[in-house]
This record gives sequence, C-alpha cells and structure tokens, in this order.
Amino acid sequence: MKEQRADLDIVLLHHPVTNKTGETIGSAVTNLDLHDIARVARTYDVCNYYVATPYEDQHELINEITAHWLKGHGAAYNPARKEALGLVKPAYNLDAVIDEINERNGASPLVVTTSAKKQKNEVQYEDLRYHLRNNISPVLLLFGTAHGIADEVMEKADAALPPIRGNSTYNHLSVRSAVSIILDRLLGR
Amino acid sequence: MKEQRADLDIVLLHHPVTNKTGETIGSAVTNLDLHDIARVARTYDVCNYYVATPYEDQHELINEITAHWLKGHGAAYNPARKEALGLVKPAYNLDAVIDEINERNGASPLVVTTSAKKQKNEVQYEDLRYHLRNNISPVLLLFGTAHGIADEVMEKADAALPPIRGNSTYNHLSVRSAVSIILDRLLGR
Repeated sequence: MKEQRADLDIVLLHHPVTNKTGETIGSAVTNLDLHDIARVARTYDVCNYYVATPYEDQHELINEITAHWLKGHGAAYNPARKEALGLVKPAYNLDAVIDEINERNGASPLVVTTSAKKQKNEVQYEDLRYHLRNNISPVLLLFGTAHGIADEVMEKADAALPPIRGNSTYNHLSVRSAVSIILDRLLGR
Repeated sequence: MKEQRADLDIVLLHHPVTNKTGETIGSAVTNLDLHDIARVARTYDVCNYYVATPYEDQHELINEITAHWLKGHGAAYNPARKEALGLVKPAYNLDAVIDEINERNGASPLVVTTSAKKQKNEVQYEDLRYHLRNNISPVLLLFGTAHGIADEVMEKADAALPPIRGNSTYNHLSVRSAVSIILDRLLGR
C-alpha cells in the first residue's frame, strides 16, 4: 500500500541570512547545495525544493546548472540526477514561496525554521512528524545558508525545530547534512 | 551525566570502488567530502574519520587541505572547522585502518558496510545502535565513493546496514547525506 505523500516543501534561504559577525547579508548559491539537497528531497518525496535569492544573476546560475541536468548532456548521462534536480525551483524571497504553496493548496503552510541555536517557539520532531503523516496542513521547512537565517525571519515563523544534537556539543553541521538528518527524522522509515 | 563515548570509526573508501559500468576503480578525493563528513563525524563524536586511497598524490592533497585548517590561516579564522578536520586521517587501504583500530583497542572492530543496494548479511540500525551504546566491540563503518564499495570488500565485511529508504524508491543520495543520516540513526539523540 502506498502511503499518502506528505505535503512538505523546503526552502534554502540565501537572503536574509547573517554573516560571521551577525550582519544581514545575501549569500551565494552553490552548485553542491543544489545537487546534494535535491537528491535528499527526492529521496524523501518532498514536493519542491525552493532556492530563494533576490539576485537575478543567481537565478541565472541556478537555471544554468539545472538546465544541464534537465535538458542538456546530463539528462541522458544521469537520469537519476535529472529526477532530483527537477525539484529545484528558484524564488525571489520567502513570501513568494509561501504564496506559491498557498495557491497550490488553497491553504497556508505551517512555516517551520531550523537553526543550530535553540529557539523559543519549538516544535518537537515527533510532533511535526505526526503533523506531516496526518496531513494536518502543508508544511514549509526553512534552511539557512552562511551563518543562519536572519532574526526577522525566525521571529515571523510559526515554529522552530530544535538544533540537531549528536553525541557532543559541537553544532557546526553543513546545511547539506542538516537537511539530510532533519528529513530522515521527519519522514524516514 | 556524560554518556560513554561510542567506539566508532568511519572510513571513506576511494579504492576499491566501482564505476558506472561496474569496473573496479580508484576515485578522487574531494574537498567537500573531507569538510562535510568531518563536521558530521565531530558532531556525533566519532573517533577517527579515515580517508582511504592508495595514491600518494591524493594523500598529499588530503594533507594540504587539512593543514590549512589545522595550522594555516583557517585554524585562526574558523576554530570549529579545525576541530572537525582534526579527525581526518589518511590511510592507504582498509587493512591499514583495521590494523590501527586493533592496535588502539587491542580488539578487532566489527566491520560494517553501507550501500544503496540490499545486502545478504544485514544488521538492523537498532541492533547496531545497541551494540555501540553498550560498547560490545569497536565498530568500523565503511562508506563508498563513486558507484559504491567493490564486491570484494562487501563480501569480507562482518555485516551491512540496510539502504536508506525515504518516502520513495529513489536511492541516489550523496555519500555526504548518507553518512549524516546513518550517524544520526546510530548515535543521534
């Protein structure tokens, strides 16, 4: 029996994020964030993997990279990669992503942030897992680049997942690892 | 109360692995496999992250990359990265890794492979988690590059973890994502 698909989208924010000293910046899109995270998103059957940046040249870069794998030589060479990168959707900002999900579902998504630091409005992994499994509402999961999502976004979100703790107090995972672990916790078998 | 440290090492094999057509090859070391996997290893308090390749020039590359973060400009700029990359140990082959663990512990590690394909000698995640938590013996976890670990290594191992299944039949995760998810399943809180 096929399980019902979870109504989950993810977004990788490149703006507004913070730098090492806490200032708000826009970070650069990287090829590997597109590939690694698209492959995880496809594995866990995520609806869309939005890549949010306000910069036009960065949209061009995203489209250039994905076109190679969707329509170029890469599509024939590696159909599995095509399947993954087909989930990548460039977006100008978080509001545009929320609008698109709203339009698709006729319902606003629950906006849930992730962070290496503890937040006040925590939702537990098992509770969000239950929410997704029972399709209580669409969910949009936010991941940050650089030194993390800016406070102005964190504060507006509906909830925040607790930081990933391994067997140490070290909390410097790559965003690629964080997405992998969090999707497995929420949707893995 | 501090939990006892799990006696776990991991190794990323660059030889013998297979290519797209199933031939045995040696793959190239990549900068990002060193960084991303070292950060995960540090998060989950893994003893050592061995990077196995028989090629002398690849050992030089590993040492050049890690030296920047351990002793060069990177060490002052990003101490958290230094802490992670301090776990990276170049090795010439799997036997050398096993010998080193043996010497450290006075006991052979349980050698456990990982793969995107189902293997005969499966150990379940919860059983290996129990094994680690109770320190039944040292464990060495093997990860492959390119199209996966060659059969000759898979057949000699003590056990194999089942492939990671998300919410689909898609099984093309990056090795960086696979390490992240597997360490979280075995050691995560």
